[in-house]
Amino acid sequence: MTDLSGIRALTFDVFGTTVDWCGGVAREAAAMLGPKGHALDWVAFANRWRREYQPAMEAVRSGKRDYVVMDVLHREMLDMALDEFGVKDVSNAEKDELALAWRRLDPWPDTVVGMERLKRKYTLAALSNGNIALIVAMAKRGKLPWDVVLGADLVRTYKPMPALYDSAPLLLDLKPEQIMMVACHAWDLDHAAKRGLRTAYVRRPDEYGPGAALKAPAEGAYDLQAGSFVELADRLGA
Amino acid sequence: MTDLSGIRALTFDVFGTTVDWCGGVAREAAAMLGPKGHALDWVAFANRWRREYQPAMEAVRSGKRDYVVMDVLHREMLDMALDEFGVKDVSNAEKDELALAWRRLDPWPDTVVGMERLKRKYTLAALSNGNIALIVAMAKRGKLPWDVVLGADLVRTYKPMPALYDSAPLLLDLKPEQIMMVACHAWDLDHAAKRGLRTAYVRRPDEYGPGAALKAPAEGAYDLQAGSFVELADRLGA
Repeated sequence: MTDLSGIRALTFDVFGTTVDWCGGVAREAAAMLGPKGHALDWVAFANRWRREYQPAMEAVRSGKRDYVVMDVLHREMLDMALDEFGVKDVSNAEKDELALAWRRLDPWPDTVVGMERLKRKYTLAALSNGNIALIVAMAKRGKLPWDVVLGADLVRTYKPMPALYDSAPLLLDLKPEQIMMVACHAWDLDHAAKRGLRTAYVRRPDEYGPGAALKAPAEGAYDLQAGSFVELADRLGA
Repeated sequence: MTDLSGIRALTFDVFGTTVDWCGGVAREAAAMLGPKGHALDWVAFANRWRREYQPAMEAVRSGKRDYVVMDVLHREMLDMALDEFGVKDVSNAEKDELALAWRRLDPWPDTVVGMERLKRKYTLAALSNGNIALIVAMAKRGKLPWDVVLGADLVRTYKPMPALYDSAPLLLDLKPEQIMMVACHAWDLDHAAKRGLRTAYVRRPDEYGPGAALKAPAEGAYDLQAGSFVELADRLGA
């Protein structure tokens, strides 16, 4: 097993790993669209909205369009989801408001208690494709005790571009191997590892909604695997 | 009086305003140099070290040299201070360690209690000439509850360049007038106001050591004046 005693900072993926985007977006969509008489499968709607996430970022990563913050991408992606679900009676102001549902996501039940323990031993950094304003608003609401928020707007591209992962050792004045990336997505960890970061896989089986099938990584993949932030704290002796 | 009800975030100067650099640097210098037999006026030494602060930053601001982080400037400035005080028996490793004294500064007695109150109502951002690693290390040690740390390394120049002040509304997704700059230095607030930020002057009479003479701003200058972060919280209804 890798020696993890040199770890000084943990960088966290946010959407899915730290907060429940599916449950939060489903709740916010139901709260706005339900009173208008829509009775959608809200979890399916949230997943449809999220499905545009990678293509939207890819346009920026590939240079096809200039960088825009995730709030803007969320707003654009919403148009596609509403269109596909046949929802037409939503004003632009309402869409703007609903797009910020992604700032109002709840942490998983183990998130804050695990972070409070980890914070005593490590610097806790958000390392997210979200922009700083989005991640900070979410943290204020959910009481996420970040030491520092590193958003994609600092480097003006999106994970898994190397610039995101490289921004953590640069801005935290640490060596890559002193940083552990925490995420529930293999692609995120695989790219973090390529930039020299340690990796912790946290299982979030309900990320796409209760009971959605998820492929777990092989045993021994990543420096560490845990079922929650509390188990992560246990495993790291925090 | 200016209507301050629209304020959503407070951006804080750190050195002097939030933490006591003079006392902390004097303490750290005494701890390292005292055992070597040096009996300097430690407060004078701290002030001599700090005196290189503006010239060092000016070289970056003017474009005479490329941006380097404040940790590096502190290290260079230390050489000049040691030289002037005739201190020669310090190894490079010891100088590197002493230069990081600026990461180990204590908050003023009212700082954390005031911030905890203000944090319930506002987003609290460090807006410092310090680099993120420096400000985060200091915050961990002194338990400063920042919501977000905006360091000079994000824009790669130094206050009072407009880019620093402009980074706050940009990264926090707010209008300049929704942000209040909190500082104990007139030059910082004057330039923040030019970029549209609201301003709060906090008196720190002991910034340069107990009893150092300070010129207080005129009554009515700035949107608000306070004698501590606790009084700032009182005045803002937080």
